[in-house]
Amino acid sequence: MKFNTIGIITKPQAELINQTLQSVFVFLNNKKCKILLDEQIPDSINNFNFKKVSREIIAEHCDLVIVVGGDGTILNAVRSLAHADVPLLGINVGRLGFLADISPNELEASLDDILNGSYREEQRFLLEMQVLRKGKIIFEGDAFNEVVVHIRDVARMIEFETRINDEFVNYQRADGIIVSTPTGSTAYALSAGGPLLHATLDAIALVPIAPHTLSNRPIVVHADSQIEILICNTKEGIAQATCDGHLSTDVHVGDNIKIKRKADKITMLHPKQHNYFEILRAKLHWGGHS
Amino acid sequence: MKFNTIGIITKPQAELINQTLQSVFVFLNNKKCKILLDEQIPDSINNFNFKKVSREIIAEHCDLVIVVGGDGTILNAVRSLAHADVPLLGINVGRLGFLADISPNELEASLDDILNGSYREEQRFLLEMQVLRKGKIIFEGDAFNEVVVHIRDVARMIEFETRINDEFVNYQRADGIIVSTPTGSTAYALSAGGPLLHATLDAIALVPIAPHTLSNRPIVVHADSQIEILICNTKEGIAQATCDGHLSTDVHVGDNIKIKRKADKITMLHPKQHNYFEILRAKLHWGGHS
Amino acid sequence: MKFNTIGIITKPQAELINQTLQSVFVFLNNKKCKILLDEQIPDSINNFNFKKVSREIIAEHCDLVIVVGGDGTILNAVRSLAHADVPLLGINVGRLGFLADISPNELEASLDDILNGSYREEQRFLLEMQVLRKGKIIFEGDAFNEVVVHIRDVARMIEFETRINDEFVNYQRADGIIVSTPTGSTAYALSAGGPLLHATLDAIALVPIAPHTLSNRPIVVHADSQIEILICNTKEGIAQATCDGHLSTDVHVGDNIKIKRKADKITMLHPKQHNYFEILRAKLHWGGHS
Amino acid sequence: MKFNTIGIITKPQAELINQTLQSVFVFLNNKKCKILLDEQIPDSINNFNFKKVSREIIAEHCDLVIVVGGDGTILNAVRSLAHADVPLLGINVGRLGFLADISPNELEASLDDILNGSYREEQRFLLEMQVLRKGKIIFEGDAFNEVVVHIRDVARMIEFETRINDEFVNYQRADGIIVSTPTGSTAYALSAGGPLLHATLDAIALVPIAPHTLSNRPIVVHADSQIEILICNTKEGIAQATCDGHLSTDVHVGDNIKIKRKADKITMLHPKQHNYFEILRAKLHWGGHS
Repeated sequence: MKFNTIGIITKPQAELINQTLQSVFVFLNNKKCKILLDEQIPDSINNFNFKKVSREIIAEHCDLVIVVGGDGTILNAVRSLAHADVPLLGINVGRLGFLADISPNELEASLDDILNGSYREEQRFLLEMQVLRKGKIIFEGDAFNEVVVHIRDVARMIEFETRINDEFVNYQRADGIIVSTPTGSTAYALSAGGPLLHATLDAIALVPIAPHTLSNRPIVVHADSQIEILICNTKEGIAQATCDGHLSTDVHVGDNIKIKRKADKITMLHPKQHNYFEILRAKLHWGGHS
Repeated sequence: MKFNTIGIITKPQAELINQTLQSVFVFLNNKKCKILLDEQIPDSINNFNFKKVSREIIAEHCDLVIVVGGDGTILNAVRSLAHADVPLLGINVGRLGFLADISPNELEASLDDILNGSYREEQRFLLEMQVLRKGKIIFEGDAFNEVVVHIRDVARMIEFETRINDEFVNYQRADGIIVSTPTGSTAYALSAGGPLLHATLDAIALVPIAPHTLSNRPIVVHADSQIEILICNTKEGIAQATCDGHLSTDVHVGDNIKIKRKADKITMLHPKQHNYFEILRAKLHWGGHS
Repeated sequence: MKFNTIGIITKPQAELINQTLQSVFVFLNNKKCKILLDEQIPDSINNFNFKKVSREIIAEHCDLVIVVGGDGTILNAVRSLAHADVPLLGINVGRLGFLADISPNELEASLDDILNGSYREEQRFLLEMQVLRKGKIIFEGDAFNEVVVHIRDVARMIEFETRINDEFVNYQRADGIIVSTPTGSTAYALSAGGPLLHATLDAIALVPIAPHTLSNRPIVVHADSQIEILICNTKEGIAQATCDGHLSTDVHVGDNIKIKRKADKITMLHPKQHNYFEILRAKLHWGGHS
Repeated sequence: MKFNTIGIITKPQAELINQTLQSVFVFLNNKKCKILLDEQIPDSINNFNFKKVSREIIAEHCDLVIVVGGDGTILNAVRSLAHADVPLLGINVGRLGFLADISPNELEASLDDILNGSYREEQRFLLEMQVLRKGKIIFEGDAFNEVVVHIRDVARMIEFETRINDEFVNYQRADGIIVSTPTGSTAYALSAGGPLLHATLDAIALVPIAPHTLSNRPIVVHADSQIEILICNTKEGIAQATCDGHLSTDVHVGDNIKIKRKADKITMLHPKQHNYFEILRAKLHWGGHS
């Protein structure tokens, strides 16, 4: 056994999740490892009386964290464990995810391999966002997928200036802009017309949403770029800055949203036979040989 | 003189508008026609003491309405005059508009021609929107450009069903959808990836905004189609339905937004040499022979 | 029986087609109608010894033509029957088509209904293309999907001028341009970024292919527009004009490709329960309620 | 003087080029440096009797090469100097280029600064392409912008399989695919819907051209990826593989087009105040503060 203490995080509500969760419990109970459950998991489904602890304890003590759920559950886990140096493993429940790529029906075999040290390791990065008002930080957050600056009211486009490494890029009127990691390039950024970035590419995509100037196009820059979005013209309170569609704050004229790569990286584990393009094909309905 | 009573509508705030407005006043004062000013025009700039009246009076008594301003001012005028059978003429103030296509520097010559009956006439249509909740109309509005159903919070995509003439079209998760007239096809719908519809085409475009399913594409249907957008899944109050980015209401799960062509048409007058494609070229920066 | 003489056209090569064709033969042999087979159908599969005739005879004598095959086979049949006033019915063989929308497994029931007069009738139009060189027609062809003007060598973009109803639209450098009917809007035009046009809309879409100017967008115009593409700058012989990806000619600098709606219309028959949007959903993998 | 031997490459045909070229000649003649002209420059404009040599000699002996012309001239120079370790400087003639970014009207000042060692240095990479038939290389070429695999006849889509680092990516029917460097991301790849890649990003974009599957999107991968395009289905001789729209070969079913980053890098020199985004703004008509 390569891992001694394993944390389990989930979003325990649907019947589907509990079933998969029980399979994971049963499997791990037979292994000689210590199990720590996220304290949000209800006692009613903790059949083996695994110890329940906070995310902080999980981050501190585990050398592997298994996340059971969809991509949203993993996004949530990643943001709370970003500071810890613990690898994550995603088990989906029914529908294949871009991040949760182990299926319930291959669970035992995949887990066995991985616990025995046979896996692919992948480094991914997060973004950290700071909103500055008159030079002071009024909001901070991490994003594993993307930071979005967006109108709150469709009646009002926002106007903003983008700067990269202190150089002026452009001035746009648009519904907003998405600043996306490679992980996020298969999410909202893709819907808005952004390119797919290979999962481990050291790059960030800036994708405009419904830009007024038709020649505005997604730009891909180095992952170590310092990105700034300055709100130039909007009614008070009608724009917002959001991390992973989750943490959100209203932004005003003059606010400066600073975005850069977070120093802490996330390690994702995958089965040996993991294939990024296979997941793309499955999720994007790319046909096979027809 | 082909027109006996001429109404004047504007959005009198910027210096630029007043200058053009004065030129229109001077020109019309020399003509043997009755002038009715929109009552919102301040006395301070009504040098010739033209009679000031409500939009209703303008609609009832004028046989031509001159709108001085940008496309937004014309959108506003059109919505208030849609029920009347009076032609509109748009004079821009500085920047060429898609609708306000007479420039201040060709004002006298163009107005002279048009008042003498030498012009192009163009029929355009509006959309009428009804929001139904549990079968009752809770909101109504007209749109000359587009009806938009849109998220209010970027953290939450909306899910909605589209129906055309009582046939199910599709079920989408997206930031929203734009239902656009040909007039609106050069506005928000174009930014969201919609096609240009020739100004007088009897068609409506449905343009998804950042759709989750990548194969969703703009659809163009007959102008006499009955379009319904049913909100299927969203948090209370976070979606909105909007006419021309102006009239707006929050929409809830279960609400049905019905959109169809308004029976009343709008007649726009243009100079004889008016060329729709020339305006497209100018506004969209289509290069000439390079 | 509503139809007395029924023609059958197919592209008899794959095993799959012959199987479906035999089912059609068996079904029709029991009906009191005269059957005329396209002369290209080999004797080896003409088990009932139906009379074999030319397309011209089919056009002249039939009051219904059944096409067994894919959309390509229907495109071919339509071009040869466009001048005749005979309705077409498409039976697909395996994979649902946009045009061949009766499946082999619902064949008997659907055919029975349709032969008894229970069907939906739909008018569609074709385009006619003329290539003029120094004022003389050097090539003519009909298109049910689209006319394409395209480079022959990727090393050389073509430059061309588009005119609609004698008005200059724009000058483009691009890989080419697609002039598409509503029927063709689900084919090549869609791949190149064009909008879906409802099957019976009286409109034509002009869709640029990889345009050099980023603000060039698809334009939808009236179906009765006279469209001209003038080749302005290209090496001899490296551009081509093509109807439905089938009839093709090389075009030179100075050539004028004229495109307009053909006067003859095509009548397609569909089962009563035919639903255009259902086919779109199936073919474009639009998810259902997820 | 930082540079002792300076090569000059141009495409001497237009009056505009000769004028700028003379200014460069006059300027350099006053400097204490050795000048080597590309042998293709005609004697008629070699007023100072500079020595004329082959590209090979320029590559071997120069420590700076000045290219006078458009981006096409620089592409040509880059491909012939890729193996040499000599920096390039681009002077445009009239129209600003993405690569030729010194304007004739700022020529003396910019050249003076650069010759004195005040410049920005930028590393860019090329792609090398090999076409393999039955395991044997039948064609090789370098590309600074992009490798394109493309149909030769619009009537026939090609079907091809893409592999990255020996992993199957997808199977596509399309007009073709563009494999683009960051340098090429502002050229053909942009017209086909690809993203902008920052000039110095270590990445390659794969951009499908008019893909049949609507969910096919541009993918950005590491610059050290081994890319393979396998032609699966096409008529003999109707597809072609092309480097920079210049070197071209026909490709057949079964051919394998291998593309990877070339080991040799290109060093471009720019004025100190060079700003990549400023060039993007100018070339893509991104409006300023409106």
